[in-house]
Amino acid sequence: MNSLEIPFNKPFITGNELEYIKDAVEYGHISGNGKYTKLTQQFFERQFGFDKCLLTTSCTDALEMCAILLDIQPGDEVIMPSYTFVSTANAFELRGATIRFADSRPDHPGIDERSISPLINKKTKAIVVVHYAGVATDMDLIMNLADEHGLYVIEDAAQSINSYYTHGDGSVSPLGSIGHLGTFSFHETKNIMAGEGGMLVINEPEFIDRAEVIWEKGTNRTAFFRGEVDKYGWVDIGSSFLPSELNAAFLYAQLSNLIRIQQKRMAIWNKYHKALEETCIRLSISQPVIPDFATNNGHMYYLVCKTPEQRTNLITHLRELGIHSVFHYQSLHASDYFKLKHDGRNLLNADSYSDRLVRLPFYYELTTEDQDLIITAINKFGGRRQSLFRKDWTEPIVNSHAAVG
Amino acid sequence: MNSLEIPFNKPFITGNELEYIKDAVEYGHISGNGKYTKLTQQFFERQFGFDKCLLTTSCTDALEMCAILLDIQPGDEVIMPSYTFVSTANAFELRGATIRFADSRPDHPGIDERSISPLINKKTKAIVVVHYAGVATDMDLIMNLADEHGLYVIEDAAQSINSYYTHGDGSVSPLGSIGHLGTFSFHETKNIMAGEGGMLVINEPEFIDRAEVIWEKGTNRTAFFRGEVDKYGWVDIGSSFLPSELNAAFLYAQLSNLIRIQQKRMAIWNKYHKALEETCIRLSISQPVIPDFATNNGHMYYLVCKTPEQRTNLITHLRELGIHSVFHYQSLHASDYFKLKHDGRNLLNADSYSDRLVRLPFYYELTTEDQDLIITAINKFGGRRQSLFRKDWTEPIVNSHAAVG
Repeated sequence: MNSLEIPFNKPFITGNELEYIKDAVEYGHISGNGKYTKLTQQFFERQFGFDKCLLTTSCTDALEMCAILLDIQPGDEVIMPSYTFVSTANAFELRGATIRFADSRPDHPGIDERSISPLINKKTKAIVVVHYAGVATDMDLIMNLADEHGLYVIEDAAQSINSYYTHGDGSVSPLGSIGHLGTFSFHETKNIMAGEGGMLVINEPEFIDRAEVIWEKGTNRTAFFRGEVDKYGWVDIGSSFLPSELNAAFLYAQLSNLIRIQQKRMAIWNKYHKALEETCIRLSISQPVIPDFATNNGHMYYLVCKTPEQRTNLITHLRELGIHSVFHYQSLHASDYFKLKHDGRNLLNADSYSDRLVRLPFYYELTTEDQDLIITAINKFGGRRQSLFRKDWTEPIVNSHAAVG
Repeated sequence: MNSLEIPFNKPFITGNELEYIKDAVEYGHISGNGKYTKLTQQFFERQFGFDKCLLTTSCTDALEMCAILLDIQPGDEVIMPSYTFVSTANAFELRGATIRFADSRPDHPGIDERSISPLINKKTKAIVVVHYAGVATDMDLIMNLADEHGLYVIEDAAQSINSYYTHGDGSVSPLGSIGHLGTFSFHETKNIMAGEGGMLVINEPEFIDRAEVIWEKGTNRTAFFRGEVDKYGWVDIGSSFLPSELNAAFLYAQLSNLIRIQQKRMAIWNKYHKALEETCIRLSISQPVIPDFATNNGHMYYLVCKTPEQRTNLITHLRELGIHSVFHYQSLHASDYFKLKHDGRNLLNADSYSDRLVRLPFYYELTTEDQDLIITAINKFGGRRQSLFRKDWTEPIVNSHAAVG
């Protein structure tokens, strides 16, 4: 990439990352579960009140730990949105689950809470919700449904650090703390990064002991180091889910600057939202909607174009100006891997987000000048080229310009 | 740990680790499969002639990739040594395999090649060998057996970087390049480290395309970036097997000093071996044996005590002097997880190594002074304490002091 171009994402160093890595080496421990892993887990437990946190090598791995913890067996059914990252599904597919994909909300790419009930049957074991863009799923609806049917709930909170849900009774919970289990990502595209990395949050105390075993390759090594057993050995299935201290040290340095990072990201988000409003109305492009029960954590800024072609034209227009915007997920129910397993239901909103959603450059070090260039470029979009190529497309998504809640 | 104490292991920085990590951030890519991942994979492909290498977050994950690649299904049988790390077994257990554990050699903790044949039946799908301490299994015997029965061979070469096998015809192959698949570890206890890390080596071209998909979470993302497909999506099961560039950058810096590291480690190994010879004869302790067909890569220095009690006394004696020696694996067939699944065969050599093997401090920065202290301490061992507590133990392992081949 040309150095004059504006990338979609850019990792960054907040200050102490390399110093902490050096310290981990000097401390004599750079494999997993050392000083920085413990500091990071404690940070999350104290800051967000999570019962128990375990760092993992990725959010994928945290989801795989969930599938093992829930003892998912062939034939068990798991409900999740189709518009999500492939790992949400793979983690359960690897344990033999039958996945039942649900559609997205009309106003938001997250799971349509009201579409879940008809998918529940005797084989259903869990619901996985994905808080898309860090914006909450309506968790009261989900938890009530789960209670009613005796299901487990997993929050795929990959994008949801420092974001919250307001319950019907007015109380507020951080995302990842509401379901029985929650998972986070620290991939380089996330607000806080470890290169690759993730975390499992365990809100159901009954899972804690076994989670520690699964995390440590199916051994009771953690209990051994606490002096609870004389020697450790193989006691369960498991994997090498714990990340290196190199990653944990990098992550902890970033986490120490969480407030500063969040302030900057919210400023970027709000600037996009305000500055693009008129153009979006003019071009029938939808801006993000934050429901009343949700907060915004400035994870990403996306637009939902009127048509797939408009999106292609917008991405091309920006690329010609050296600006890298990207689309996001492809509906998993329609993927090469899954389409023959899918039960045939139309998931039109999921497909529509696959075809029409575009993400704008968004990272901590995005300068005011570069963001101004992006905004100007978008505001100039929508001239001749687009009208030349416009076709009619089915548009199941209600166009919405609701303000940020 | 007191700074005057001698640890069992100690991670180290060779020179460019932090600089390369900083470079990865500035380069704008710290998630997986970036510049340093590619450099590391190329290094192994060029230096050791491996067909195709894929870095992973751990050797565990590389073994899990093997199990997926071989399409292991419930009921398939996999043969492996009982004296190995739990991940060797877990990777196949997670896919539903039935594990058939084999015993260790009398003269070496590696799998007893001659004990495998009776374990093979119609359900057998693969043999996993573990080159313990970087010392080769007799691969001609293994590959012939595999050919005869149509089995796959996986080399768990976790400890085997820069180690070789001499075939019956005199030709020499690096470990990891002989079986259909090979796996390496870059855990902090290994010769070359990434904190946590591993690598899959694919020697069977038919596996390469699918391995890239499984590695990238079951998507054809790698083919997409090569321009082979228009967009990428979910095409297979998979996981997030690729490590962060933070780990790859650290690893590549170490790899650039492979020769220097190996020279130092071999010097440490040879010094232990020579300086402890007399004491080992006096106390009936076995020193490591390197068969004629194998090389030594200076991965670890271990002793096999005459009795479990002698080992306990030796470890205690050293600990009292501030020296941290450790035992190693516990036989997996006798583990809490597996003992009820085991078919009841006695695996006496595996049990014996579990009970009697001890590893001495071994790391790149071990100073001459500290190694002298360790050697002196061991050479003073074996006085009153031991004779007071000695009991008789079954000793299936032939005591051996064969010289290094």
